[in-house]
Amino acid sequence: MSKFAWVTLTTNDTYSLGALVLAHSLKRAKTAHQLAVLVTPNVSQAMRDRLNEVYNVVQEVNVLDSQDAANLALLSRPELGVTFTKLHSWRLVQFEKCVFLDADTLVLQNCDELFEREELSAAPDVSWPDCFNSGVFVFKPSVDTFAQITEFAVKNGSFDGGDQGLLNQFFADWSTADIKKHLPFVYNVTAYASYCYLPAFKQFRDKIKILHFAGKLKPWLIQFNSETKVASVSSEYAHAQDLIQLWWNIFCENVIQSLSTEMAGLAGAL
Amino acid sequence: MSKFAWVTLTTNDTYSLGALVLAHSLKRAKTAHQLAVLVTPNVSQAMRDRLNEVYNVVQEVNVLDSQDAANLALLSRPELGVTFTKLHSWRLVQFEKCVFLDADTLVLQNCDELFEREELSAAPDVSWPDCFNSGVFVFKPSVDTFAQITEFAVKNGSFDGGDQGLLNQFFADWSTADIKKHLPFVYNVTAYASYCYLPAFKQFRDKIKILHFAGKLKPWLIQFNSETKVASVSSEYAHAQDLIQLWWNIFCENVIQSLSTEMAGLAGAL
Ligand SMILES: O=c1ccn([C@@H]2O[C@H](COP(=O)(O)OP(=O)(O)O)[C@@H](O)[C@H]2O)c(=O)[nH]1
Ligand SMILES: O=c1ccn([C@@H]2O[C@H](COP(=O)(O)OP(=O)(O)O)[C@@H](O)[C@H]2O)c(=O)[nH]1
Ligand SMILES: [Mn+2]
Ligand SMILES: [Mn+2]
Repeated sequence: MSKFAWVTLTTNDTYSLGALVLAHSLKRAKTAHQLAVLVTPNVSQAMRDRLNEVYNVVQEVNVLDSQDAANLALLSRPELGVTFTKLHSWRLVQFEKCVFLDADTLVLQNCDELFEREELSAAPDVSWPDCFNSGVFVFKPSVDTFAQITEFAVKNGSFDGGDQGLLNQFFADWSTADIKKHLPFVYNVTAYASYCYLPAFKQFRDKIKILHFAGKLKPWLIQFNSETKVASVSSEYAHAQDLIQLWWNIFCENVIQSLSTEMAGLAGAL
Repeated sequence: MSKFAWVTLTTNDTYSLGALVLAHSLKRAKTAHQLAVLVTPNVSQAMRDRLNEVYNVVQEVNVLDSQDAANLALLSRPELGVTFTKLHSWRLVQFEKCVFLDADTLVLQNCDELFEREELSAAPDVSWPDCFNSGVFVFKPSVDTFAQITEFAVKNGSFDGGDQGLLNQFFADWSTADIKKHLPFVYNVTAYASYCYLPAFKQFRDKIKILHFAGKLKPWLIQFNSETKVASVSSEYAHAQDLIQLWWNIFCENVIQSLSTEMAGLAGAL
């Protein structure tokens, strides 16, 4: 068995749909490595059973919450306090190295080469590119590091109230120390934002390895016509139509058949 | 006299207003280095006289245009073909090293340390951060380099039709080769885009050294009330109010008195 693992997190049954699609995208891309998912007590037993079918490890963890309403309001994302729960990833010490992937990411091509990178490697965030985006990052599990980051969090909080601000404060030299720790942007292309610069998107489209549906509009929240199998995207996001469709194709081909009607109903408009 | 220079470009009298404000912002920040501006034949003699009052060098150059309508349409910026004219900067061989600044930038703090960097140093672009933004960059004048880039441009064009795509193709290893060539983002903060991530903006606000009004909304196009001295910004850009106001403060305090009514009238709503 590989000593390396892809790790994600879900705190409820809805984000779990993302985790299921993500796992299948990794398998389609023929990864040689293991899959691990952290779940919080809120995730139903039925959903854990589904996750177990595709993840090698389904690990229950308790919720860590930044409780930082003020900064989360600036982001208009009150729900992101719980992303501190991500920190539990460092406790997966049965693995030598891991890559964390948000549950709202989708792997388009094999990316096993990411395990050659060191902690903490990540791609720049589109809004403030001297920060890394914490939706995709390479790390080395270690109870010591876990303790250091949580202690740091208690002392300093997070400048954005979520895990991204915290991890950027902790791994503060990311932007200046080592170019090798800058993952190419194709490993974490934020599906909606990058269309600000359509020519670049066109130029690099075929090289995209990991898509990230960062932001409020998650693919599972989008209207989907179960007869035509087409996701109907509002005009504002029309440019992202084919990417959202891709998520739904995997959902339909690999995920939906194992779900109860109720579970599948958590996705948009099924 | 310093062997180093700040360099900008203007192809018409309107962008020249930006160049004038930029020069005064550099002087307010007490730069020790020279100021040079490239002007194309379209810039009026009266405006050149104004530029001469604050720039050490006012150099006429001919227009270089990418003529790439298709890619510029993707950007919705047909006017950016002429930004190829920027390439003439490499011909300012009377200087040992230069920093190019777009005419829509504003220097908030002394940045003379930029001249310690090597060619080609630049900050990441917010839309596709493996590309650098070509509104601020350190370069070394050289007729050889000028010839190489123009030859490259003729052969390969530019993936976005503007100078940014071209320079990124030419200096293609920027994103992977040397972290020292990644200018910190505070040297080129794109005034409108960065508000997507308000907590980061709040966190780093006082460290901003150069602001860049990239995009269609240039400060000189914004409604300004000449009695109250307040720039009236539409709600969409309300978050950028104080930055736009800053541009107008410099315009009112240092620039307007030297302009004829007609020249001043090129700015928004005077
Ligand atoms: O209520 C939540 C919010 C977030 N997450 C996890 O934390 C990650 C980060 O949150 P999100 O992707 O919504 O943030 P964004 O990428 O939009 O900033 C998610 O992908 C999930 O893995 C979760 O499980 N439940
Ligand atoms: O019609 C034009 C367009 C551009 N420029 C110069 O080229 C730079 C780049 O264009 P702009 O700043 O409009 O591009 P953006 O930063 O918005 O992408 C400007 O700052 C000016 O120095 C110019 O002189 N005339
Ligand atoms: Mn995400
Ligand atoms: Mn500009």
